[in-house]
Amino acid sequence: MRIFVAQLNMIIGDFKGNVAKILQSIERGRERGCELILFSELALCGYPPEDLLLHRSFVEEMEGCLKKILPKTKGLAVMIGLARKNPYGGEKPLLNSAAVIEDGVLKGFYDKRLLPTYDVFDESRYFDEGTGPALWEVKGRRVAITICEDIWQHGGFVLETRYKRDPVLELMPHKPDLLLNLSASPYYTAKPKERLEVCREAALSLKCPVILCAQVGANDQLVFDGYSLCVDGKGELREAGKGFEEEELFVDLEALSAPIALEYDPLKSLLDALVLGVRDYFHKHDFKKGCLGLSGGIDSALTAVIAVKALGKENVLGITMPSRYSSEGSVKDSALLAKNLGIELVNLSIEKPYEAFLELLHPYFQKRAADVTEENLQARIRGILLMAFSNKLGYVVLSTGNKSEMAVGYATLYGDMCGGLGVLSDVTKTKVYALARFVNREKELIPNTSIEKPPSAELRPDQRDTDSLPDYSVVDAILEGYVERHLSLDEISDRCGIAKKTVEDLVHRIHLAEYKRRQAAPGIRVTKRAFSVGRRYPIVQKWK
Amino acid sequence: MRIFVAQLNMIIGDFKGNVAKILQSIERGRERGCELILFSELALCGYPPEDLLLHRSFVEEMEGCLKKILPKTKGLAVMIGLARKNPYGGEKPLLNSAAVIEDGVLKGFYDKRLLPTYDVFDESRYFDEGTGPALWEVKGRRVAITICEDIWQHGGFVLETRYKRDPVLELMPHKPDLLLNLSASPYYTAKPKERLEVCREAALSLKCPVILCAQVGANDQLVFDGYSLCVDGKGELREAGKGFEEEELFVDLEALSAPIALEYDPLKSLLDALVLGVRDYFHKHDFKKGCLGLSGGIDSALTAVIAVKALGKENVLGITMPSRYSSEGSVKDSALLAKNLGIELVNLSIEKPYEAFLELLHPYFQKRAADVTEENLQARIRGILLMAFSNKLGYVVLSTGNKSEMAVGYATLYGDMCGGLGVLSDVTKTKVYALARFVNREKELIPNTSIEKPPSAELRPDQRDTDSLPDYSVVDAILEGYVERHLSLDEISDRCGIAKKTVEDLVHRIHLAEYKRRQAAPGIRVTKRAFSVGRRYPIVQKWK
Repeated sequence: MRIFVAQLNMIIGDFKGNVAKILQSIERGRERGCELILFSELALCGYPPEDLLLHRSFVEEMEGCLKKILPKTKGLAVMIGLARKNPYGGEKPLLNSAAVIEDGVLKGFYDKRLLPTYDVFDESRYFDEGTGPALWEVKGRRVAITICEDIWQHGGFVLETRYKRDPVLELMPHKPDLLLNLSASPYYTAKPKERLEVCREAALSLKCPVILCAQVGANDQLVFDGYSLCVDGKGELREAGKGFEEEELFVDLEALSAPIALEYDPLKSLLDALVLGVRDYFHKHDFKKGCLGLSGGIDSALTAVIAVKALGKENVLGITMPSRYSSEGSVKDSALLAKNLGIELVNLSIEKPYEAFLELLHPYFQKRAADVTEENLQARIRGILLMAFSNKLGYVVLSTGNKSEMAVGYATLYGDMCGGLGVLSDVTKTKVYALARFVNREKELIPNTSIEKPPSAELRPDQRDTDSLPDYSVVDAILEGYVERHLSLDEISDRCGIAKKTVEDLVHRIHLAEYKRRQAAPGIRVTKRAFSVGRRYPIVQKWK
Repeated sequence: MRIFVAQLNMIIGDFKGNVAKILQSIERGRERGCELILFSELALCGYPPEDLLLHRSFVEEMEGCLKKILPKTKGLAVMIGLARKNPYGGEKPLLNSAAVIEDGVLKGFYDKRLLPTYDVFDESRYFDEGTGPALWEVKGRRVAITICEDIWQHGGFVLETRYKRDPVLELMPHKPDLLLNLSASPYYTAKPKERLEVCREAALSLKCPVILCAQVGANDQLVFDGYSLCVDGKGELREAGKGFEEEELFVDLEALSAPIALEYDPLKSLLDALVLGVRDYFHKHDFKKGCLGLSGGIDSALTAVIAVKALGKENVLGITMPSRYSSEGSVKDSALLAKNLGIELVNLSIEKPYEAFLELLHPYFQKRAADVTEENLQARIRGILLMAFSNKLGYVVLSTGNKSEMAVGYATLYGDMCGGLGVLSDVTKTKVYALARFVNREKELIPNTSIEKPPSAELRPDQRDTDSLPDYSVVDAILEGYVERHLSLDEISDRCGIAKKTVEDLVHRIHLAEYKRRQAAPGIRVTKRAFSVGRRYPIVQKWK
C-alpha cells in the first residue's frame, strides 16, 4: 500500500485556499500511484480555529467543503481532519473528526477521543469526546485512525491530564494492520523527538506501522514544526518529513526505507521556528515588510537576522534612534549589522521630541527627580516613530524583547513593547546568546561587540541591566523553575542554589509584570510554557 | 434554622485577608444566633484564580487555610468554597469543592459536578467532575449542596453545553429539606434575574427552599454582582442581598420574610458594575489615583464620572490635550466637566511634540499625503503624556474607548488605547448615551454639549466618526448579532434590515481589529460577550 502524507501549511479559515491545497495533494498522490492520502488534524480550517468554531456558518461551510472534495477522490482512500456538528447530542455541539473517504464516498468519521484542555489547548471548549469506530476497513486493510492527542496518553507524555481512556490500548484487541494519526502538534524544542517516541510506543503496543501526518506552519503564536513520520511495527523510524516546511512524504508499506535516525538540531530548529513564525504571521496576513528598532544590542540584532531570513533583506528596515544616553557603539553596531545583513537603516535622533516632552511636562514634574518616567519617555518616543513608519509606509513593527525581560517587566509598555509580533518573547536571554553565536557560526552577521557588551537599555547614563536585575543566568533559572515547571520557591532555591530572597523577589516581579504582558504583542511560542499563549494569570492578585 | 449568608468580596490569592474575612463572618453569624454559615464558590482563594491553580503550593496553602478555620467553627455548620487536590485519581488534579464543616470537624467535601468550559470559564482546564455525595445531614436536616453551575442546567440557562447530568434532578428522589448553592457568577445585565429564575426552578423541582451565596466584587475584568438570595419551596423570593457590595444576609427558615420582588434597575446596575470594576481594580492593587484624557466627548466624560464614583474626586485627574484640530468646545467642555465633578484638570497642548515628530519624520514622509499616520501620532503623543503622569505621579491611566469603537478598531493602538483598565470597552456607544443620560438625570454632570455633539476623534479638520463608520445604531446592531449571538451575515441583514454589504464590511472590520484588541487594556465585562475576556479569535485568519 502506497500512502501519501500531505504535510501542509494551512491558513485558518481560508476554506478556498485550504481546499485547493487538499485537492492538489490528492492529485499529486494519485499521480504518484498512492492508494491512501493522509491529511492533518483540522486540515480543512487549520489549527487552532478558536472561537470561529462557535459560528454555525463557519462549521457548515467546512462541512460543505468536504462535499466538494468527495468527487475528486475516485479510486483513492482519503482521510481529512475537520470540525463537524455533533450528531449524537452530547455535551458540546462539535466533534474534532477525520473524514474517512473511499472512492468518492464518505464512509464516515473518526471522532477524536482525547481532547486536550490545558496549556495552549482548549478543546473541551468546543468538542465532545468521540465514541464512534476507530477501526476502518480501507483498501482491504484494518486501518486504525487516531487524531493527535489520542496517542499521547499511551506514550506517557501527557502530564496535565490523566485521561480515563487510552485509545491505543483500546485498539490492541483489534490488531490493526496500520495506525494513522492526523496531527496538529505545536513546536517546542523537545517536541519532534517526543512525537517520534509517542509513535514508537503506539507501534510497539499495536505491532503495526504508525504514520503521522503533521500540520506545518505558524498560526499566530503557535508554530507547527511538521516532521511527519512513519515508524514500523517494531518502532523503528523508517520515513521522516522535513521540519518547518511543507512536505510530500511517500510511504510504501511493502517497501519501507531502511531505518533512519531523526535528524534534529535543537538550536537550528529554534531558529527555524522563529523564522517560520515571522514569515507566516506576515505572509498569511498579506504583509511583506517589517521594521524594527535597532539598539546596537543583541536582542534587536538577532530579531533583525530572523526578519531577514523570514522576509528577505529588501523587506526589512532597521531604525536606530539614539538619545543623549546612547553609547557611540549603539549606532555604530547597528550600522554594521545593517551592512552585514544588507538592510536599509534609518537614523532618527529622538532628542527633539524628547526635549519637547520634557519642556511640556516640566511645570508638573519640576520638583521631582528624574526616574523611570524619563526612561519610559524615550522608549515611547521610539515606539511612536516605529509606528509612524508602520502607518505611513506599511511596515509591520517587530518587537524585540526577550522572555527574560518580559518575565520581570524589564520593558516599556507602549515603548519597546510596541509591535505586531514579539519575535523573541519566548526566548530567554541565555538562549538569545546561544542563537546569536549559532547565527554567527560561519560569518559575523551580528557584530561581536553587540554580543559581548554588557546588556543595557541605555536610558540613563551608564545604565546596566544588572543595576536592577540579577544576572540573566539567575533570572532564567528562576524563570524555568517557576514559569515552566511551577516549582515552589523553596524547590527553586534548593535546586538552583539561589538565595530564597532572590527567588522571592523575582517571582514577585513576574506576577507584577502581568499587567504589562497582557498588553504585549503576541509572541512566537517556542517553549513548553510561553507568556503570550497558554498561560493565564490574574493581574490583580496577592498570592505571596 | 438560622442561616448567615456571607456575601464577601475576596481578593484572588490573598489567603490571609480572605481567611480573616471568613473568620469575621463566622463570628458575626455566631453573634447573631445563626447555626449555619454559607460562603461563596472558591471563597478561600477568590474566583477566578486561573493558572495559580497549577501551582501545587497554591493549592496546599489553601488546604492549610481550611485547617486554620476548623477550630473556629465550634457549634456551627459552615460551608466554604475552595479548590483541593483530587483524591480520586480522575482526569484532572483538582476539585472545585465546598468544605462541609460542623462543630469544628471537617465532615467532608461536596465536589462541583458541572464544570463550565465556555465563555469566560475554563473549569475543565483545572477541575475534575465531582462524584461524591451532594446530600448532607446538617443540624438534623437533609441539606443538599451545589456549586454555581450545578443548578443552571436545570434552570435551562446553559446554552453552550448540554451537560450529561442534572444535579438538581439527581437530588429529587432524596427530598432535601434545603438546597444550598455556593456561587461565583459574573455579572451581565440579565444575570441577577436569571439567577433568581434558576433558584426558583430548583426550588420548584425539589419543593424546598434554595439559598444562594454569591461572591461580590470585581476581579480583573469580571464583576460579581452579589444579590445572594433565598427562595422558598414554592419559588417565591423571600430574602435578597444587595447588589455590588458586601452583604450580611440572614435567613431564618422558620420565619422567612414575606415574598418580595427583586429590586433591579438594569441601567443603574450597569453603572454600579462599572464603578465596582474600577474601584476593585484599583483598591485590590493598592492604587488610589486614576487619570484620564478628557477630549470633550461623551466617552471620556462618562469614564470620568465613573472614576469619581469609584475613587473619589480627589483621586481623579483629567488631562485635556488639545491639538491644532481640536474644537474650541473640546477644552471648554472638559473644563466644565472637571468643574462639575470637582476634579483637577491639566491642560497640555500637544502642538510642540507634534511638530517635533513631523519635522523628524518629514525627510521620510515628505512625498506622501497626510493620512492616518498623523492622526495616530496625535493620539500616541497623548498616550505618552498620560503614561508620563502615571509613571511620575502614580496615577493609573483609565482607557475610555467604548465597545463599538473597539469592535471596528476605531482607536489608536498605543494612543487612546493606553491604560491600565478599559472602563467602557464592553459598553456600546448606544449604551454610553443611555448611561450619560442616566448620570445626568438629576443634575447636569456631563455637559449636554458633550452628549449632543456628533462623535468626532478631532484628529483632522472637521472629522466625524460617521466619515468612516455607519451610524452607531447600525454598528451596535451588527455587533450584537455577530459578536454576542454569532448570527450569520444573512441573518443579521434580514433581522436588522441592514444591507448585506454593510454587514459584511463591518464584520470584516471586526476581524481585522483583532490585532489591536489583543493589545488593549483589560476591560470590565458587562455583557454576555465581551472582547476582552471570554472571546478567543485568531489574529491571522481568512474566513470570509
